[in-house]
Amino acid sequence: MDLLHSPHHDGSPIHVSDESPELGDVVDIRCSTALADDTREVWVRTVTDAEPIFLRAAAVRDENSVWWQAKLPMHNPVMNYRFLLVGEDGDQRWLTAAGLHDHDVPDAFDFRLSSHGPAPDWSRDGVVYQVFPDRFARSDATAERETPHWAVPAAWDDVVVFEGSDPRTPLQLFGGDLDGITEHLDHVAEVGADIVYTTPVFPGESNHRYNASTFDRVDSLLGGDEAYRRLVDAVHARGWRILGDLTANHTGDTHEWFTSASSDDQDPHRGWYHFRPDGSYATWMGHHTLPKLNHADPALRAAFTEGPDSVVGRWLQAPYDLDGWRIDVANMTGRLHEVDLNHEVARTIRRTATAVREDALVLGEHNHDGSNDVPGDGWHGIMNYSGFSWPVWEWLRADDTPARSFGTPVPVARRTGPQVVASMRMWLARYGWRAVSSSWNILGSHDSARIRTVTGSAARHQVAAALQFTLPGVPMVFAGDEIGLEGVLGEDSRRPMPWERRDDWDTDTLAVYSALSRIRRQHPALRRGSLRWAHVDDDALVFLREHADGNVLVCVRRAAGEPVALDPIVTGDTLLSTGGAEFCDGRLTSGEGPSLQVIAV
Amino acid sequence: MDLLHSPHHDGSPIHVSDESPELGDVVDIRCSTALADDTREVWVRTVTDAEPIFLRAAAVRDENSVWWQAKLPMHNPVMNYRFLLVGEDGDQRWLTAAGLHDHDVPDAFDFRLSSHGPAPDWSRDGVVYQVFPDRFARSDATAERETPHWAVPAAWDDVVVFEGSDPRTPLQLFGGDLDGITEHLDHVAEVGADIVYTTPVFPGESNHRYNASTFDRVDSLLGGDEAYRRLVDAVHARGWRILGDLTANHTGDTHEWFTSASSDDQDPHRGWYHFRPDGSYATWMGHHTLPKLNHADPALRAAFTEGPDSVVGRWLQAPYDLDGWRIDVANMTGRLHEVDLNHEVARTIRRTATAVREDALVLGEHNHDGSNDVPGDGWHGIMNYSGFSWPVWEWLRADDTPARSFGTPVPVARRTGPQVVASMRMWLARYGWRAVSSSWNILGSHDSARIRTVTGSAARHQVAAALQFTLPGVPMVFAGDEIGLEGVLGEDSRRPMPWERRDDWDTDTLAVYSALSRIRRQHPALRRGSLRWAHVDDDALVFLREHADGNVLVCVRRAAGEPVALDPIVTGDTLLSTGGAEFCDGRLTSGEGPSLQVIAV
Repeated sequence: MDLLHSPHHDGSPIHVSDESPELGDVVDIRCSTALADDTREVWVRTVTDAEPIFLRAAAVRDENSVWWQAKLPMHNPVMNYRFLLVGEDGDQRWLTAAGLHDHDVPDAFDFRLSSHGPAPDWSRDGVVYQVFPDRFARSDATAERETPHWAVPAAWDDVVVFEGSDPRTPLQLFGGDLDGITEHLDHVAEVGADIVYTTPVFPGESNHRYNASTFDRVDSLLGGDEAYRRLVDAVHARGWRILGDLTANHTGDTHEWFTSASSDDQDPHRGWYHFRPDGSYATWMGHHTLPKLNHADPALRAAFTEGPDSVVGRWLQAPYDLDGWRIDVANMTGRLHEVDLNHEVARTIRRTATAVREDALVLGEHNHDGSNDVPGDGWHGIMNYSGFSWPVWEWLRADDTPARSFGTPVPVARRTGPQVVASMRMWLARYGWRAVSSSWNILGSHDSARIRTVTGSAARHQVAAALQFTLPGVPMVFAGDEIGLEGVLGEDSRRPMPWERRDDWDTDTLAVYSALSRIRRQHPALRRGSLRWAHVDDDALVFLREHADGNVLVCVRRAAGEPVALDPIVTGDTLLSTGGAEFCDGRLTSGEGPSLQVIAV
Repeated sequence: MDLLHSPHHDGSPIHVSDESPELGDVVDIRCSTALADDTREVWVRTVTDAEPIFLRAAAVRDENSVWWQAKLPMHNPVMNYRFLLVGEDGDQRWLTAAGLHDHDVPDAFDFRLSSHGPAPDWSRDGVVYQVFPDRFARSDATAERETPHWAVPAAWDDVVVFEGSDPRTPLQLFGGDLDGITEHLDHVAEVGADIVYTTPVFPGESNHRYNASTFDRVDSLLGGDEAYRRLVDAVHARGWRILGDLTANHTGDTHEWFTSASSDDQDPHRGWYHFRPDGSYATWMGHHTLPKLNHADPALRAAFTEGPDSVVGRWLQAPYDLDGWRIDVANMTGRLHEVDLNHEVARTIRRTATAVREDALVLGEHNHDGSNDVPGDGWHGIMNYSGFSWPVWEWLRADDTPARSFGTPVPVARRTGPQVVASMRMWLARYGWRAVSSSWNILGSHDSARIRTVTGSAARHQVAAALQFTLPGVPMVFAGDEIGLEGVLGEDSRRPMPWERRDDWDTDTLAVYSALSRIRRQHPALRRGSLRWAHVDDDALVFLREHADGNVLVCVRRAAGEPVALDPIVTGDTLLSTGGAEFCDGRLTSGEGPSLQVIAV
């Protein structure tokens, strides 16, 4: 599979003059064909008010390519488009974001431009570090706190209980706190991250706190409001950003809204949930401790999502000044049977957030196909499990890994390079370039197995990290991944950071993360550049990211293999290389096993 | 390409226990694998409130296949689902409506079930005959009518002017009328149609009448309200149905609403259109004679689409009793720049129609990708140009045809059998089984070239007709196709029916249409059966439609070719065959050129 000489277009600056135009603007778009290609004319087909129109593209040649240029009017807020390539003998091919087609295909994978505002630059250019507060670090204050009635106290080095059937799983409390995070920001700096995202800090009767009891204050077990302010200030003092985690789908059954609502069917909060006539209520996935919120209720919206004084708005202002929200269970929020308010909720949260903080980020958790949910007016991006995590897992999985993609009844599939690239291309096409570029590349999270457990080796883990930092999307590192922590599923992956056992750290892998962060920051191509697949075989993926400020070539291998010779030959400077792989005279040679190469070309 | 032994599922009764369940119902679904297939377990993956869930399928073997069965809960109004097939060695494949995938793919082509009510049975099982009143037939009354001021009178055998630049194109009036249609219903019966669909009968200053001057009465040039009642009564007396044609997107600039609105910016109708501050207004595709309606205006909705006394409701009641509407420009209706009320309008029209007439049909014109517009709560179906017409044209086009798919700047593409089948499968998947089955298979219309002109020969034309009557979807025959009329584009295709020149009729082709209609009516497999592709090569398409009441095998060839041997061998009775093709001992042999075979097996 060599796509480097295939007709190409994507949403990057060398192809699109404005990735975030206003409604009514006209955007210059262009696709390239190889000089040897027999394309004689090109048309852009787009759709205005659901009616197709064709725009003729003009040809401009440079030394490497023919560029076919047209002007796309932003007639509707989101425009989809594709290219029609007519060959010398009249043959017609379509170029969509999923690739080149020799037959007609529906619009599902067309290129897309959105006039809804983009995600803030800091969120696109940054690296996210995810912290699960109970397991990251204790401050000295932890020792002085009383264990709450619901918790099962644990020592820092205790084994994490993670069987869903074990009642201790959500209750085992290790006592990490917010000052603990503040005290370890140097470590975050070493990883190279500059966006701290903590899972919830609101009180909740569990170690994960996704069952909030209130949204009015920070859990005193974490140090309370003052500790949060210290963390936020310390993060901001470094020029970094910090994100909160808000469950928009449900609260805990101990939440003050719910206890009020459930105490009396005339209670003003009653309509904030989905109570049935028999007193039962809708929940998240059947868990009665997680009652589902009813966003159709105006009073709920006023308290929760609408306006500067709502929960969404309040925490983004002084004294907390969070830079945005990661929205938990964003995919299910506002959806129940025949009701679907999801886009309205997303737009409301976005509007509230950006009204109080212009460059706020609102990012949705979506563990499945979120393509219909990211037109750009709601979530700026999502946690991109489908389009990134699962393909990477499928390519790099160890033969004996016990890990599963969450929710699946079968092991992680084994796929070859062409298979996972086909997947990634389809997902990128379906979401659209800007949505993927604004979404999070995740190798694992507090909800999944650890990438080390999936891959079974440091070498393949580092290959995964290379993909995370060099493919379109924002790297989100779950704290501990960078030192090789393991875990077979979400709860198990929440093992405490072994600050006192540095000998157990995989410092080689930490160094790779540090290098990848630095390289990503230094090379705009890795943050904003195009994506062209140059070579794909079962065990090797090679791709080029092009940008006016310099191109970057990436070669990753899951196993040793034949050298890859680039045509035309390119030369460049190796920025990072592992596993004995080398680059010389346009040849990418393999080491003895897995390897990664990042090369400025 | 042999898909007969490939794992299979579609929306037909042998795979789905209820194609139109209620919200909350549980539907039995099953897919088949060949006995030789190594699939060891199958899971159904569906999505509830946007969260994926997996359901285990149980295996049941019969003599031909293994059937994998599961129960799908209708948790949301529209459920999408797919099958995960796990092989003996653990390999994982997805079966979606687009086919079998060896890598992960987005949900865009998942199977779908809708709990919104289905299209009425009569519309699914019928054959539609489209009449353009000015060109179909004159009654004696025509001679007595005065030519209106705007019209250019034409004799019945005059050449049709069709150049867009010629002002006579919309004004040339041939004088066909409604009694003319009534007098020729025996011909419609000969074609085998039982649903008469006329393009608009409201007055409008053009021969096409898509620029209505009122929706309150039938054009007196057509015989007025009385003639319409005579036609409707005659149609109903045969047990047939009749559809009106309503432009929901715009009116003519002579419409009483528009003349009122444009006379005074305080006029109560002003808000029914999209006037700009400078007095200009939004139109259909830049034509100032076609002002676009504003469905956000409550008074417009009350007059036009909402409730029994609205235009939509009134004509479906006595004394007219139309059986439904074909909605013109349905794709653009309610859409303009940042406003998109399309689904609301579709739902409103559907609700109004079915409230006054329970089994009313509402079918939308859509000349492009309507997949997002057919969840089932609005249009029952669409005119399926994208998923049927264009692939058929591309396969059967004459080398020298001047025809173009409308709106395209290039000739009809030339495609092979595998290419057009790939297209048709993707479109069927994207729309969903029920939406396609309820949509119209069109070889041409008053808006396009004639199929005879596209194919350039009677033999290939008949092949096209075979596809129209045997693939999922409702055949819509544009009057004149059945006798081989020609036309290079929409206006040219509106040539008057040559009632007085029977020697010019292609009666062989008429006989094929008659036979196809009869066979379709007699064999439920052709109306409701599954669709399995048995053999596809460049010049031949073979498919099987399976139904509990008997299967039907179809083989069409655009050129002579090698025999196709079916495995396993099947025998059957040939219902229709052209071009010298034969069927014997499971072998489909070719004649000297194009051919079609329809065989009960």
